[in-house]
Amino acid sequence: MKVNKNLPTPLYHQVKDYLEEKIILGEWEPGFQLPTEKELSAQFQVSTITVKRAIHDLVNKGILYRQRGKGTFVSRKEDKDIYQLVSLRNEAEEDKHHPHKSLSFKEEEAGVKIGKMLNINAAEKVYKIHRLKIEEETPVGIEYTYIPCSLFPGLTEKVIEDDLFYNVFTNKYGMNLGKAKIFFSTITAEDYEADLLNIPKGEQLFVLERFTYTEEQQIIEYSRFIIRQEKSRYFIEIRL
Amino acid sequence: MKVNKNLPTPLYHQVKDYLEEKIILGEWEPGFQLPTEKELSAQFQVSTITVKRAIHDLVNKGILYRQRGKGTFVSRKEDKDIYQLVSLRNEAEEDKHHPHKSLSFKEEEAGVKIGKMLNINAAEKVYKIHRLKIEEETPVGIEYTYIPCSLFPGLTEKVIEDDLFYNVFTNKYGMNLGKAKIFFSTITAEDYEADLLNIPKGEQLFVLERFTYTEEQQIIEYSRFIIRQEKSRYFIEIRL
Repeated sequence: MKVNKNLPTPLYHQVKDYLEEKIILGEWEPGFQLPTEKELSAQFQVSTITVKRAIHDLVNKGILYRQRGKGTFVSRKEDKDIYQLVSLRNEAEEDKHHPHKSLSFKEEEAGVKIGKMLNINAAEKVYKIHRLKIEEETPVGIEYTYIPCSLFPGLTEKVIEDDLFYNVFTNKYGMNLGKAKIFFSTITAEDYEADLLNIPKGEQLFVLERFTYTEEQQIIEYSRFIIRQEKSRYFIEIRL
Repeated sequence: MKVNKNLPTPLYHQVKDYLEEKIILGEWEPGFQLPTEKELSAQFQVSTITVKRAIHDLVNKGILYRQRGKGTFVSRKEDKDIYQLVSLRNEAEEDKHHPHKSLSFKEEEAGVKIGKMLNINAAEKVYKIHRLKIEEETPVGIEYTYIPCSLFPGLTEKVIEDDLFYNVFTNKYGMNLGKAKIFFSTITAEDYEADLLNIPKGEQLFVLERFTYTEEQQIIEYSRFIIRQEKSRYFIEIRL
């Protein structure tokens, strides 16, 4: 477990490759706690700065993660099919195990921004639903959902607590769903997100925005999901 | 253009909402250069710290972007369908306008990491292709592609320069493509990415990883695309 100081590859890169191989080969399994930076620098006979940089890069790539006051661990990421976000059955199954915590449920004017998203007037009333997604008793995502009141009269917090949006749309309101359009982006956790998800400020979060359309191309829902990357890796599979 | 200091909404949040509305309503179009922070703080009658925070949040959300030494601008994002990444025709059309710059083309041992990705032995030879994606003469993405040599004898830099991977696979090597699996994540730009893409270190980059399978479920390609978010917003559309 030593680096080769004669190679042109930078030392931190050699350390990084070495650590990454241990993980890929399964010697260090998900959840494994790494030796301290001091221990690693002694083992590799390099400076702790070199070790820090290697670890920093692997944290950046999501292969390792840090826990405040505890140390550095090998990430355990669950692969999640994007289709789970739009499929009735999968979403239902998933949500049975991963409940939500309601943060607020309001009925108010859309405003310019949400009005634009839903293609309605800013003065029109919408349900503004704000929830925390929980997995294994840990908050893993922040959700904002906006639905025009005119399309879903009588929607209550209770209805969506017990069921899924897509099930409610189709079963309770007889909507014919046409398509969903999902946009991908990221944000950096500010105080609000950091507090809710119990993560360090500045951590990168994955953002999925979902627009749901009826068969008649009317937008009936806009949601913004802010997701911790440490726990999930989203994918899609496309037939060629 | 004043904030209301009696509202419970924090001042920076009011400034942020105000700026965002100007953009949503199209008063400030993509590419528009914002007034300076000093000018905005005078207009709103708030401190520059408040303005800075509002702008910081909008930069974080990708609605604004900063250019070193120039100022802050409204983002112009092109919506891109993920299917472009796997469709022969679209990719072809797209690439006609958006060429690549080759950074390196090597034939060498896969190594543990790439071997694992391609499901082959670490000692097997692969083509390691490293390119820069160019749009309007600006580098917008960094691409790494790995292909087992045994499946594609005689592949050269010239072949892929003139054509697209999927076209080469099917037309030149008679492969039956089965599916592509695409993973989403992000990284923070380190020195290497920052230099190549001419962006500040620490900027968030979007990462798409693509695995291409034959109809017989053999992996024939693994690519890692590192993409500037400032220019593109990726989406998928799913029929419900």
